Amino acid sequence: MTFSLEFLGTGDAGQVPVYNCDCFACVRARCLKHYIRRPSSALLRIADQLWLIDAGRTDLAELFPSVQLTGILQTHYHADHAQGLLHLRWGVNRSLPVWGPPDPEGFADLYKHPGILDFSQPWQAFESRHIEDVEIIAVPLQHSKMCFGYVFKSDEGSLAYLCDTVGLPSETSDFLADIPLKYCIVDCSHPPRDTSPRNHNDVNTALAIYEKLDVEEMIFTHISHEMDRWLESTQAVDLPSYVKIAKDGLKLVC
Amino acid sequence: MTFSLEFLGTGDAGQVPVYNCDCFACVRARCLKHYIRRPSSALLRIADQLWLIDAGRTDLAELFPSVQLTGILQTHYHADHAQGLLHLRWGVNRSLPVWGPPDPEGFADLYKHPGILDFSQPWQAFESRHIEDVEIIAVPLQHSKMCFGYVFKSDEGSLAYLCDTVGLPSETSDFLADIPLKYCIVDCSHPPRDTSPRNHNDVNTALAIYEKLDVEEMIFTHISHEMDRWLESTQAVDLPSYVKIAKDGLKLVC
Repeated sequence: MTFSLEFLGTGDAGQVPVYNCDCFACVRARCLKHYIRRPSSALLRIADQLWLIDAGRTDLAELFPSVQLTGILQTHYHADHAQGLLHLRWGVNRSLPVWGPPDPEGFADLYKHPGILDFSQPWQAFESRHIEDVEIIAVPLQHSKMCFGYVFKSDEGSLAYLCDTVGLPSETSDFLADIPLKYCIVDCSHPPRDTSPRNHNDVNTALAIYEKLDVEEMIFTHISHEMDRWLESTQAVDLPSYVKIAKDGLKLVC
Repeated sequence: MTFSLEFLGTGDAGQVPVYNCDCFACVRARCLKHYIRRPSSALLRIADQLWLIDAGRTDLAELFPSVQLTGILQTHYHADHAQGLLHLRWGVNRSLPVWGPPDPEGFADLYKHPGILDFSQPWQAFESRHIEDVEIIAVPLQHSKMCFGYVFKSDEGSLAYLCDTVGLPSETSDFLADIPLKYCIVDCSHPPRDTSPRNHNDVNTALAIYEKLDVEEMIFTHISHEMDRWLESTQAVDLPSYVKIAKDGLKLVC
């Protein structure tokens, strides 16, 4: 069974453009919409089901005024990945499942006042669920808040969405090594750094993930304005050919 | 000295349209942008200073890409009034003062990770500050979270912004009774109810505020889709002539 993933937001918490920033990447994004990076969200289509991966965008009710979202796969509950839920929750006439990690805090007052959101089915680490004929497995990531990536396995090809993270926990890395991946989408917020970053991959730690897995194409996302500037530098020419940079609107098909 | 206030968002937490709602008010707002009610925000212009009252809108960086906001007067830290701060905080090259009530919790992780936001000067109840020649006084309101209204006093006329609240605490009501107000902007989220609402005014409790104060014009804001429907009913014809309903984009001048 085929499925698709469309990036709705490929920016980091600051997005591109960053508020009040006059750097090249931010000015460019203000002039040319094509370069805007909105907060983390992606749209997953499996048969006639539509799932969001993360609700970072705050205009979700406008994006989906009549088309029904089936539910939301939440990687974690940091603001830039969950803030779109603050408005959606006050919707009516339905319940909207939000499947995230079993984070006891969640985000802001969402658990206290969930409205139409149904948080009752959090994932457990390495739990497997099916949406139609696609198997989805939650894999723990390394981040400052409990965070899961998701692997989507289908006969047509498999895809991993691994954001936010810096590197991978060894149990996740070992688990993924056995799965041939057509696409591996990873957090790559920062240009290469001399020392390993704390919460998000830089180019070095993102590329190190490739070495451990069986991947055809790496897609970098969660891009900062600093990373966007670096991507225009001569250094970026040396990025391996298996690396692609995500853009808002990019669609992948498995 | 003259000053102006422009409504940027006059909706309640659910906004209009509400996600997935097919009522008359929500369908109308999807068809005719004029009827959209965005989350709570207003823009205050005093000489060349631009202050936001509440950061409920999540597109503030787009609304003010180059024009500099001077700061933000925060009524309280509920999500629909503060969510716009989640992105603004990651701005650069400046500090942005946020003057709100001395709420020890604030909203989400804003106090923990304030970025460029400066929360160091919260108001105390009935404290007075000046912006140019306009005196501003913080007045306590009645809400489920610590919440202040603001009175703007000028030689040209005075204005009170009282949202979110149900009725007024007696000390606020007594204080305001001595100030002739050209405009009194009040939370009126609900149509008339048989029993007094808990956190937001209905039409009855909003009108009762008028009886205690010296007001030329009452402006209802924080309007729900339910209230918008009621405003089209025959009952709304009986609203007193001193009542006006706020709309996104409405501008008041004192």
